[in-house]
Amino acid sequence: MSDSTASNQTFRAIDVIRKKRDGGELSRFEIESLVAAYTHDSIPDYQVSAWLMAVVLRGMTRGETAALTDAMLHSGEVLDLSGIAAKKVDKHSTGGVGDKTSLVLAPLAAVAGVTVPMISGRGLGHTGGTLDKLEAIPGFNVNLPVPEFRRVLQMCGCAMIGQTSEIAPADRKLYALRDVTGTVESAYLICASIMSKKLAEGIDALVLDVKTGSGAFMKSEKDAVFLAELMVETGERMGKRTVALVTDMDQPLGNMIGNALEVVEVVEVLRGGGPPDLRDLCIELAGWMLHLGGVSKTVAEGKQESRKLLASGKALERFRQMVELQGGDPRVIDDPKGLPHARHSQQVLSARDGYIATLQCEQIGTACVILGGGRERKEDSVDPAVGIVLHKKVGDHISATEPLATIYYNSESRVGRARQLLDDSCRVSDSPPAETRPLIHRVIGK
Amino acid sequence: MSDSTASNQTFRAIDVIRKKRDGGELSRFEIESLVAAYTHDSIPDYQVSAWLMAVVLRGMTRGETAALTDAMLHSGEVLDLSGIAAKKVDKHSTGGVGDKTSLVLAPLAAVAGVTVPMISGRGLGHTGGTLDKLEAIPGFNVNLPVPEFRRVLQMCGCAMIGQTSEIAPADRKLYALRDVTGTVESAYLICASIMSKKLAEGIDALVLDVKTGSGAFMKSEKDAVFLAELMVETGERMGKRTVALVTDMDQPLGNMIGNALEVVEVVEVLRGGGPPDLRDLCIELAGWMLHLGGVSKTVAEGKQESRKLLASGKALERFRQMVELQGGDPRVIDDPKGLPHARHSQQVLSARDGYIATLQCEQIGTACVILGGGRERKEDSVDPAVGIVLHKKVGDHISATEPLATIYYNSESRVGRARQLLDDSCRVSDSPPAETRPLIHRVIGK
Repeated sequence: MSDSTASNQTFRAIDVIRKKRDGGELSRFEIESLVAAYTHDSIPDYQVSAWLMAVVLRGMTRGETAALTDAMLHSGEVLDLSGIAAKKVDKHSTGGVGDKTSLVLAPLAAVAGVTVPMISGRGLGHTGGTLDKLEAIPGFNVNLPVPEFRRVLQMCGCAMIGQTSEIAPADRKLYALRDVTGTVESAYLICASIMSKKLAEGIDALVLDVKTGSGAFMKSEKDAVFLAELMVETGERMGKRTVALVTDMDQPLGNMIGNALEVVEVVEVLRGGGPPDLRDLCIELAGWMLHLGGVSKTVAEGKQESRKLLASGKALERFRQMVELQGGDPRVIDDPKGLPHARHSQQVLSARDGYIATLQCEQIGTACVILGGGRERKEDSVDPAVGIVLHKKVGDHISATEPLATIYYNSESRVGRARQLLDDSCRVSDSPPAETRPLIHRVIGK
Repeated sequence: MSDSTASNQTFRAIDVIRKKRDGGELSRFEIESLVAAYTHDSIPDYQVSAWLMAVVLRGMTRGETAALTDAMLHSGEVLDLSGIAAKKVDKHSTGGVGDKTSLVLAPLAAVAGVTVPMISGRGLGHTGGTLDKLEAIPGFNVNLPVPEFRRVLQMCGCAMIGQTSEIAPADRKLYALRDVTGTVESAYLICASIMSKKLAEGIDALVLDVKTGSGAFMKSEKDAVFLAELMVETGERMGKRTVALVTDMDQPLGNMIGNALEVVEVVEVLRGGGPPDLRDLCIELAGWMLHLGGVSKTVAEGKQESRKLLASGKALERFRQMVELQGGDPRVIDDPKGLPHARHSQQVLSARDGYIATLQCEQIGTACVILGGGRERKEDSVDPAVGIVLHKKVGDHISATEPLATIYYNSESRVGRARQLLDDSCRVSDSPPAETRPLIHRVIGK
């Protein structure tokens, strides 16, 4: 007899709160009942927020985390992509600054023969969001209804949309409550939130990119590894091949930050060029996607194949196809003048000669938000044109009066503060950094 | 510049929640702002419940506890009894089974020259409540408006009423929320709740009776002592002489449990008789009230004076006067037939010969609730007539077929379960208990 169908069990929210408060382990039945009751408005916010705080402070077992993920996943629709023969594999990042890998990976993995049904989010806080980047492309529609999403997937092997109201409604309600009750910062709750949404995509496997460093939500590697392990174990418990790469976010990824600017850099990578850190990370993640998707025997083989598909322009052609199928103007791929452009620009010069020691990443992300490129509150709108182009990265030599970065902006009133943050973010020292942080810190779940 | 008036401080509930979640110490300004905002409905229940859970799991410093008590106290009216020259002293108990000391102490301390402005509560769970006991006296009105309360106090030195809506409204709101969010069980929150209400009575000093044992909320002596110390320190920080007696509640106090029955036993004690444990505890608590109220130099002298006032019948006369002033029928003092009587009674007999080893106190309290003498939910009404009379206490010898207790009841459908609980509560052993628990475990705050 399964826990969840035992007819002699009754659910009282207060008992579940007390049990977690006292450090007990909740049963699958208790977790499912709580999530279902909350999704259907039959228990009040104030009971759920007390429970959430108890979870933040008491933690959860692996079993509880999987049960919570499962309950949130099944609070709504799970996409049925069984009509598509290819393996469905997605990638999810915990968020960073300048992280535009999703726009490269979806067409790249698709052209290699993996189907990528990518449901993404918007930027919040200092981090960017995939949907905002896509919407910098004139006409691009991230709000496809599910049948249309399926049709694009079938036609080009990848499609990129926003969360629909049918997917994991429990997560939407819970996230809104966590946001206002100081209960966002829990690896268990973060894991359940991410994994429930990703597994609702009907995927076979998932590659996670867990960021660590000054621009990540998990600043310390310890916290990032903990979350990565939790998500991998939860994915595997739910029968999905799951791998997590803990990757560096101690400086922005690539050189461009800001929605339209990031599309430009995506196209550079899809043309076989682009900045090395961004290109390398895309190839690494794509290698894993191809391997888990069964189109390459090893990760190394998957990476090799990815390099080829970037060099040959085939990945770029697939990107162009997806853009067209989702209503976007493909001409911007060949000529970035069609993308939104800021009216003004300013250079940020170095005050001294030396080597870039740090580019404090959250400050740079925040500078972009201040320019209007991101959101301080969920309801804020985003200016796709503004942003920052870094001319130097950590370890590079810079001469006095050489430009560190260029700021693209539309509002004079905002540029001063952004410039100050950029200045503050950069520390120049006399000698090159003794150690450089690796791009890939760790792979979890091989 | 005081913390609470600093004009450059702004209050955001989310910051206060996060700070407590992370184990920080809240400032007086933060606590005052939170309590004020909640009292005026300007922050939602779900933020306050998350904060309450963080307090339960992170605890509070002594300073925070005093600030919370103070903020709750000043959320409403504080009685101004400065027109009464005598010292105002109250007694508060954390609740037990058969604990009817308040009805003895108010007239006893009053006749000795201390003014006792007692604002009490109703029974909840397995414990009885002073208001329910008073209302067993036909006509007794516990809902006096404040001017009438003051008039009774001036005329007879004591008055006993229920909480008014003007007193500590923050506590009423917070308690209702704690009740449904699993956040009742925190010494810090219990302390602030009790102390804010008691200090709103406009008293000079307070004697606390913190119960410990199987019938108390704080089962372990350690927890009881912790709460007692917290309340004493909080009272002293707020400028009130405060003493706490940690007293035994491992078996019921006295022999009678049930509202009308307890009034009968109160009158016995006020006549100079009654069961020794109840009488001794009343004299002990009265001794402290008289000492803190300045009418006796020492506690011993206060106890001696109390014994005299019970033996002389003067305390009983003062009780009669208070009953009359509050609309009650004083004839029930001379003839208990005027009190509500149950229609039926049954004896619970001992199954074997031996010595009473335990009388599990919560079970006995629950048996009385099941008979209708208490409340399972706040909105339940209470049957004043029903209850239990114990013929034996822990350590007493009992013969096979000798009655352990008599149950007074009105509903045949309820008596079976109550009888079972009484049976279960009592353990008889061959030899007398090796150790007897003291009536007074500890005095804190001398």
